[in-house]
Amino acid sequence: MKLVLLSGGSGKRLWPLSNDARSKQFLKVLQGENGQQESMVQRVWRQLKNEGLADSALIATGKSQVDMIQSQLGTNVPVIIEPERRDTFPAIALAASYIYSVEQASLDEVIVVLPVDPFVEDEFFAAIKRLAETLSSTNADLALLGVTPTYPSVKYGYIVPCAAETDKPVIKVSHFREKPSEVQAEELIKQQALWNCGVFAFKLKHIISLLQEKGLPVKHAELLAQYNSLPKISFDYEVVEKAQNIVAVKYNGYWKDLGTWNTLTEEMHSPIIGKGIVCKDSINTHLINELDIPITVLGLSDIVVAASPDGILVTDKDSSPKVKELVANLEQRPMYEERRWGWYRVLDHAKFANGNEVLTKRIGVHAGKNLSYQVHSQRMEVWTIIKGEGEFALDGVIYPVKTGDVLSIPNGAKHGVKAITELEIIEVQTGKQLIEEDITRIYMTWTEVQAHCKEAKLPLEEIAAAKA
Amino acid sequence: MKLVLLSGGSGKRLWPLSNDARSKQFLKVLQGENGQQESMVQRVWRQLKNEGLADSALIATGKSQVDMIQSQLGTNVPVIIEPERRDTFPAIALAASYIYSVEQASLDEVIVVLPVDPFVEDEFFAAIKRLAETLSSTNADLALLGVTPTYPSVKYGYIVPCAAETDKPVIKVSHFREKPSEVQAEELIKQQALWNCGVFAFKLKHIISLLQEKGLPVKHAELLAQYNSLPKISFDYEVVEKAQNIVAVKYNGYWKDLGTWNTLTEEMHSPIIGKGIVCKDSINTHLINELDIPITVLGLSDIVVAASPDGILVTDKDSSPKVKELVANLEQRPMYEERRWGWYRVLDHAKFANGNEVLTKRIGVHAGKNLSYQVHSQRMEVWTIIKGEGEFALDGVIYPVKTGDVLSIPNGAKHGVKAITELEIIEVQTGKQLIEEDITRIYMTWTEVQAHCKEAKLPLEEIAAAKA
Repeated sequence: MKLVLLSGGSGKRLWPLSNDARSKQFLKVLQGENGQQESMVQRVWRQLKNEGLADSALIATGKSQVDMIQSQLGTNVPVIIEPERRDTFPAIALAASYIYSVEQASLDEVIVVLPVDPFVEDEFFAAIKRLAETLSSTNADLALLGVTPTYPSVKYGYIVPCAAETDKPVIKVSHFREKPSEVQAEELIKQQALWNCGVFAFKLKHIISLLQEKGLPVKHAELLAQYNSLPKISFDYEVVEKAQNIVAVKYNGYWKDLGTWNTLTEEMHSPIIGKGIVCKDSINTHLINELDIPITVLGLSDIVVAASPDGILVTDKDSSPKVKELVANLEQRPMYEERRWGWYRVLDHAKFANGNEVLTKRIGVHAGKNLSYQVHSQRMEVWTIIKGEGEFALDGVIYPVKTGDVLSIPNGAKHGVKAITELEIIEVQTGKQLIEEDITRIYMTWTEVQAHCKEAKLPLEEIAAAKA
Repeated sequence: MKLVLLSGGSGKRLWPLSNDARSKQFLKVLQGENGQQESMVQRVWRQLKNEGLADSALIATGKSQVDMIQSQLGTNVPVIIEPERRDTFPAIALAASYIYSVEQASLDEVIVVLPVDPFVEDEFFAAIKRLAETLSSTNADLALLGVTPTYPSVKYGYIVPCAAETDKPVIKVSHFREKPSEVQAEELIKQQALWNCGVFAFKLKHIISLLQEKGLPVKHAELLAQYNSLPKISFDYEVVEKAQNIVAVKYNGYWKDLGTWNTLTEEMHSPIIGKGIVCKDSINTHLINELDIPITVLGLSDIVVAASPDGILVTDKDSSPKVKELVANLEQRPMYEERRWGWYRVLDHAKFANGNEVLTKRIGVHAGKNLSYQVHSQRMEVWTIIKGEGEFALDGVIYPVKTGDVLSIPNGAKHGVKAITELEIIEVQTGKQLIEEDITRIYMTWTEVQAHCKEAKLPLEEIAAAKA
């Protein structure tokens, strides 16, 4: 069995903690094993490890999430990177081509596709193992995991069985029903329908033949090269709806979609994450504060206060799902991002009447990691090293740097830094248009940068001279 | 007539906007004349000007508020500075000694003392003029302004008349009653009692004789020198309670103490100040946001959200007066201050395991103003000029500086800067203990600094060399 975890979504429903660079699955709001906060992705990966499934798992995602996944799960996690977002069928096909042509799995290998962030008990992953066995034993085209409903939800999709086969752990699927009314949902539950939780099992050959029928390549590198020409079609539409013989395996345990603040806060063990006070007169109120600024909540029950450098949300829990529409038009650069090499946080962004902009950031580079050798065409930067030691490359010269050093990087200068110990920098960018896209990367490993540069003799003076 | 405006208070009840450096009277939350936000102090000063009283007014305050007063009212406002806080009698006596010995006013001059921040109509200041006339015409020891009560408040003090003299504009005072119960307040109102709004008129000789009786100096400079030995006694206790013949002048207009968020927000013309959205489903909700981070309020009526770099308060209006107790123990450096020369804002404060601290500030210096020539013993500073032009003095040398320049100031170096045009700086402080008190000022005007320093020839290089 191979598992393909789909990681997507921009998650405006959990604004301001989620943004384009940090979807909801990366928010560290859940309680981990040893008292530490963990994200949904980290929780699922931990559960996969506990069930011995992590070694069989791949994560399929877009370019924008790779840094975040590696930052949270480590750089050894196998990630299949979609060159652009093109819906779930192309994403799953790309993963299947990798399993087929790179991992050279058998065409009879069972592939299980699941979202990267279900909030479930460990038993869910045992059920996934049964799902794979069921696919083989029943010879079905497709096997789905179906969650036994606990109430007539109008938000979920339902898997409707051929006949009400009450006690069987496996049912034959008649059809699907998306988001019914509450009355319809009650009727569906009487018919033993199950919630569709987005977990599908099929044999590798099923997708590989489909690609061949369409005249598409089955080799990973080739499919990757052609990715931008693949149809933007969902897996549901392309595979599930066309399948003849579908079965579903019942999962009776806990399952929840933590997509909105009201559902997410139900799973938080502590009502407060971060700096602040929730006064005792405030019942069932949650505070999630990623800022350094303390928050005090007084006399307000059943509310959520969520704060990040991107924004501050104050909402009653029932209204919280509406936040998505409210912030849909709020265009803002992300104020905090986790990257493969570390993290940064925007401290201040000034725009002056003469067109000058100044962006002040605090940047952390993990020990052993480096910022790529790069050039900006629209800005100068001043770096004050506030923590640690590193190697700084500037226009072909490498300087040792340490806490207290000030580095001026003129517009157009090639520069990069490697952290020897954990490095922190206050960066002041000055220019006419400060955008993340103003960056030309020189594709070199740090070893190549070291080989390319000469060593400096008088580090600070030379940097100062380089500026003048 | 001379007016003495008392400016005190640390104003924890309006946390997080008020702090030790910025009492409630300095918060710019009211609507000014031409659509601009104005503070309570600015509103009162504007009203005094309109009534032709500003030229007769002095402000008595502690050292910590002088910069704020000058920043909001201009540097020409006459301020009597208490060397330390010692209650209202010493403060008023100090102002009286100034009026007597420096301004050389007649002993028959009427002094009117009032708080710096009553929220009133202009008519209030006309009533103050009547108050002074009444004191002279009745020959009373003391004349008070009494506000006609509009409801049986349990929060205010009451001025009780000798007899219910219903229609007279001036009454003889029998006694005072502080914070009665509601039933008692109703009874007091029946007796024609008035609210005490803290406005007292007396003749200069009244206080001067009192000082002489106590063997205290009546010359301002001498009283100032002895200020730390003055008794910590209130004006109420020392003067009002001992006066034989007190009258009160009725004021029938609007008067309000804007001391808590629920009373203050009632006087805000707009429900939103600063960046943010209050969703339509939130009725009678106010948002005051001094941060650059947008705030969204959803589904919550009758609440106040107030945010500053010091903290964020989310409270229902009825509970808002409780904030004072909640934050009483919250010890924090002010994150934003207005000063005589401009303002600063703390962007980030990092403390590392090895004891190093890093404080990042954005500093604004008004054109023509300067930061005093000074030395720090526990920190180095890096300044990146992000706006404007100025003169920078470093260890006896003056350099012209402009946007984009980077200035390194080693520990122990004398330094100062004068803004030629409006100057802004990102400052990164690094050291073992970063406190505002680590500053030795070299008492020189900027002209003296210029005379003392030699001019630089190669500005940037020399600054760099000074660092190396």
